[in-house]
Amino acid sequence: MYRILQRFTTIEIKRRGVQAIQCCGLHELNKEQHNFSNENKSFKRTRNILLGAVVGGCIGYYFIEKSKLVSAEEIKKYNNDEPGSFKEDLPVYNLEDISSHATRDKRIWVTYKEGVYDITNFIDTHPGGDQILLAAGSSVEPFWLLYSIHENPHVYKILESYRIGNLNKDECNNLTKDMTDPYFNEPKRHNALKPASKKPFNAELPPELLIQSFITPNELFYVRNHLPVPDLKAETYELEIEIEGVKKTKSFRLEDLKKLPKKTITATIMCAGNRRSDMIKHKPVKGLNWGPAAIGTATWTGVPLRDVLISAGLKEDDDKFKHVQFEGGDSDVTGKMYGASIPIWRALDKRGDVLLAYEMNGVPIPRDHGFPIRVIVPGVVGARNVKWLEKITVSDKESDSHWQQNDYKGFSPSTDWDTVDFTKSPAIQELPVISAICQPSEGSTVKVEQDKITVKGYAWSGGGHKIVRVDVTVDGGKSWHVANFEHQDAALPPQHWAWTIWTVKIPVDKKSKNVEIWAKAVDSSYNTQPESVENIWNLRGVLSNAYHKVKVNLKR
Amino acid sequence: MYRILQRFTTIEIKRRGVQAIQCCGLHELNKEQHNFSNENKSFKRTRNILLGAVVGGCIGYYFIEKSKLVSAEEIKKYNNDEPGSFKEDLPVYNLEDISSHATRDKRIWVTYKEGVYDITNFIDTHPGGDQILLAAGSSVEPFWLLYSIHENPHVYKILESYRIGNLNKDECNNLTKDMTDPYFNEPKRHNALKPASKKPFNAELPPELLIQSFITPNELFYVRNHLPVPDLKAETYELEIEIEGVKKTKSFRLEDLKKLPKKTITATIMCAGNRRSDMIKHKPVKGLNWGPAAIGTATWTGVPLRDVLISAGLKEDDDKFKHVQFEGGDSDVTGKMYGASIPIWRALDKRGDVLLAYEMNGVPIPRDHGFPIRVIVPGVVGARNVKWLEKITVSDKESDSHWQQNDYKGFSPSTDWDTVDFTKSPAIQELPVISAICQPSEGSTVKVEQDKITVKGYAWSGGGHKIVRVDVTVDGGKSWHVANFEHQDAALPPQHWAWTIWTVKIPVDKKSKNVEIWAKAVDSSYNTQPESVENIWNLRGVLSNAYHKVKVNLKR
Repeated sequence: MYRILQRFTTIEIKRRGVQAIQCCGLHELNKEQHNFSNENKSFKRTRNILLGAVVGGCIGYYFIEKSKLVSAEEIKKYNNDEPGSFKEDLPVYNLEDISSHATRDKRIWVTYKEGVYDITNFIDTHPGGDQILLAAGSSVEPFWLLYSIHENPHVYKILESYRIGNLNKDECNNLTKDMTDPYFNEPKRHNALKPASKKPFNAELPPELLIQSFITPNELFYVRNHLPVPDLKAETYELEIEIEGVKKTKSFRLEDLKKLPKKTITATIMCAGNRRSDMIKHKPVKGLNWGPAAIGTATWTGVPLRDVLISAGLKEDDDKFKHVQFEGGDSDVTGKMYGASIPIWRALDKRGDVLLAYEMNGVPIPRDHGFPIRVIVPGVVGARNVKWLEKITVSDKESDSHWQQNDYKGFSPSTDWDTVDFTKSPAIQELPVISAICQPSEGSTVKVEQDKITVKGYAWSGGGHKIVRVDVTVDGGKSWHVANFEHQDAALPPQHWAWTIWTVKIPVDKKSKNVEIWAKAVDSSYNTQPESVENIWNLRGVLSNAYHKVKVNLKR
Repeated sequence: MYRILQRFTTIEIKRRGVQAIQCCGLHELNKEQHNFSNENKSFKRTRNILLGAVVGGCIGYYFIEKSKLVSAEEIKKYNNDEPGSFKEDLPVYNLEDISSHATRDKRIWVTYKEGVYDITNFIDTHPGGDQILLAAGSSVEPFWLLYSIHENPHVYKILESYRIGNLNKDECNNLTKDMTDPYFNEPKRHNALKPASKKPFNAELPPELLIQSFITPNELFYVRNHLPVPDLKAETYELEIEIEGVKKTKSFRLEDLKKLPKKTITATIMCAGNRRSDMIKHKPVKGLNWGPAAIGTATWTGVPLRDVLISAGLKEDDDKFKHVQFEGGDSDVTGKMYGASIPIWRALDKRGDVLLAYEMNGVPIPRDHGFPIRVIVPGVVGARNVKWLEKITVSDKESDSHWQQNDYKGFSPSTDWDTVDFTKSPAIQELPVISAICQPSEGSTVKVEQDKITVKGYAWSGGGHKIVRVDVTVDGGKSWHVANFEHQDAALPPQHWAWTIWTVKIPVDKKSKNVEIWAKAVDSSYNTQPESVENIWNLRGVLSNAYHKVKVNLKR
């Protein structure tokens, strides 16, 4: 456990000439963890500060919750003070002093601006347990920059209640200079998108809106970003292709790619965390609190990856390579790019339909979705559909990125953060069959017409499988009703990449005031959904494809 | 219900010039039901007799059990008589007399050879209940021809204890002539195979034996025959290949096929009805009462189907054909061959590994498994792995055979025989993920060692998916234990065709006297098994892949 966390929190700070601080992670806050590596010694001190800062923000989050416990006197005491401002009556510490307070026996200190805080007494109330200790001896600020939830007076007040001193001013100034917001240049988003997190931006539509259209409009397509959105320009864009063992890499400009024969497919893309909120209801997990709308369907136009690889010199029957790795233009504060890979057979399979797409629903792919090039790997988890594609590597190995190696994998319900071994599970590729009830939504009131209610939703399966049936029940499975398909793509398996929109009218008992609706789908391999979330729960909250269950009130 | 039975038991008798009687069907006996049509009026009487005779044999079976109750005197009484021989001192009846005794109030009569028997007093001791009445007023012989268990002196003795008369000799001779056994030339089978039906022969191993070996020995491989086993000869064997729209068909002799480049794969084949017995426990279905061993794994050597099709003139990129149909050398009494088809993309896919196999585990494929050529479609339901392959047709259409169109399809739990529409469901091809606990077996007593019990089983998934995890619980899912893989093939998805043998030691409560063990598998698409059989139940009892649940007693 310690080893894994250590690996995730080694931070390196350098990107495009501007020193910026970015801090992600912390499963307690359901945020993402990133992989960093150390570049040179001069960054070590700052790294150590940031190491703790990762979890520092988390503390702030819990301060909000704890705020009700703080006495009115305490709040008054700090009310007129600027949080983190210098306090004449308190001692001054330098970064080295602070980083030496990183264990319980030596007390746990953190910094915020010029403030130094001893949070040792807060630690035991921390629901995430010992993991809070990672914040020890460093600053909470980078995390607060990333997650706007901390812009809350309560957080500052609670933090100040643990104030013990001041940070050496010179060091503090140096630190502040580094903290430029990496999210300063994000694209504008549609108000209908409901964020699961703002920085990085992750958002979905209300489910009722989602299934109004077989094709999801670009502006309403769920956004799942792991990092700040890069601002790539069509004119200067270059895609680099490396075939391992071949010295010379090949580059394609956007116009080069557009000259190659193009293909359009209709494909659904889904986040591995879609419907995670159902899993969280059972037991907390690490991950964004996605509802059932971290999914969308679009037409994607681009050049088949196999054609590009072959034109880059890859021989189709060469079996020495096993994977095709992708690197996005989105990078963390260390300059490490987002990365993922897919097995080479899928990349080369004519029926795999893997595209380097430059159009989404007939227009250039919007920035949030990967402008100018996104890999579309239909039937495969969104995380491998790398956006802002800058580099392809044909390799014998999988991508070594955090997201391929230590994230986006499934585990047994009994595996916890103390026993998890990420090397033991394969990276998610094809996704299993799933469905969701989108209308009516949880807790809503539904009009009963002719003793029936109308239920509507989507179903989808990975790997090019088609949905062959959706069963819906309002009596706990005593009677199942086969849904009608309102819209299903004509493509045949194994190239059926899009979801199915279904609807069904179900009789309800005349006396019932409320019902729980269940839906389950069956795909063309006759795989079906597992019944209950308890038995598929996993610590990362991925693959949440149990029966979708929605409770509604009835109105006559 | 009546309509269905009527449909399945209308019998037509004509095959290869010899009038033979074949009797299949009757789901009450968990036998296969076949579609027959009536050819002419003259067969009606015989048909009626046979209708009852099907179950007549069943009576004989129970006679064995009842034999211990028969007095020594009774046995002596009939000891020196040939069963069913003419008895001078008894009256003579004709078929019409006998068929008039088919209800309790008129007494229940049956015939065996020249003997007439009143079995009314036996009926109430029949464990199968009223179903025995189907034998009323007709001959038991066809059934005894089908099930060799009746070749037992006890059965004859008990039968003779109910003797009341003689059958009109002329009629009897006519009857005997019609009863040529279509199963007269079946291969010899290993005694360890436990028949689910004898004619056609369908049998599986006891589960504990099944998982003793990653490769299932040929002699112990489950047998699933729909019809009598044809006796094809290597020297005269010919495979005909027709490409629709091309006048000239192409023929391959066995030696022609063997000259083509060969390939060997390790693949598991499974019957769609595997584990149907679990479904039957919930609610009756139509189909053989398979346990969890209608599955086996072998190495298959043969020539890739794609190579044969291309050498027969099929163009790989010709998209006017959609299916490849197969016809076996096994035919029903009308001369109609067993048939099935697969989508052409699978047949032509290099990674599909579809073989025209002539070797099973390194030796010529045994007769029961398709000598001399069986299509191996790895990852796809056994029913499409056509045995005794005689013809291939490349077509725009699926096979029109009963087994492709009106069998081997999945339905909603609420679909019954009055509402079923076979055109609405796709023919099963790829099978979903499944697992089974093979050791300990249901109801057995298990030794607890160091507070743990050892559980062992298999898991498999269709479509070339690999098993990535098996979870086992003995506390209803409160705690899941990840099984170890005792043997798993190294082949990577999407060409992982073989099962996984797993084992796990699970702690059991010190006070427990018995436990229910549950197992579920997860495959490389992260599909997992549905929990309960109730919600996947279907009228045909196929795709029974719910959690496998086995109750055992504990011994310390």
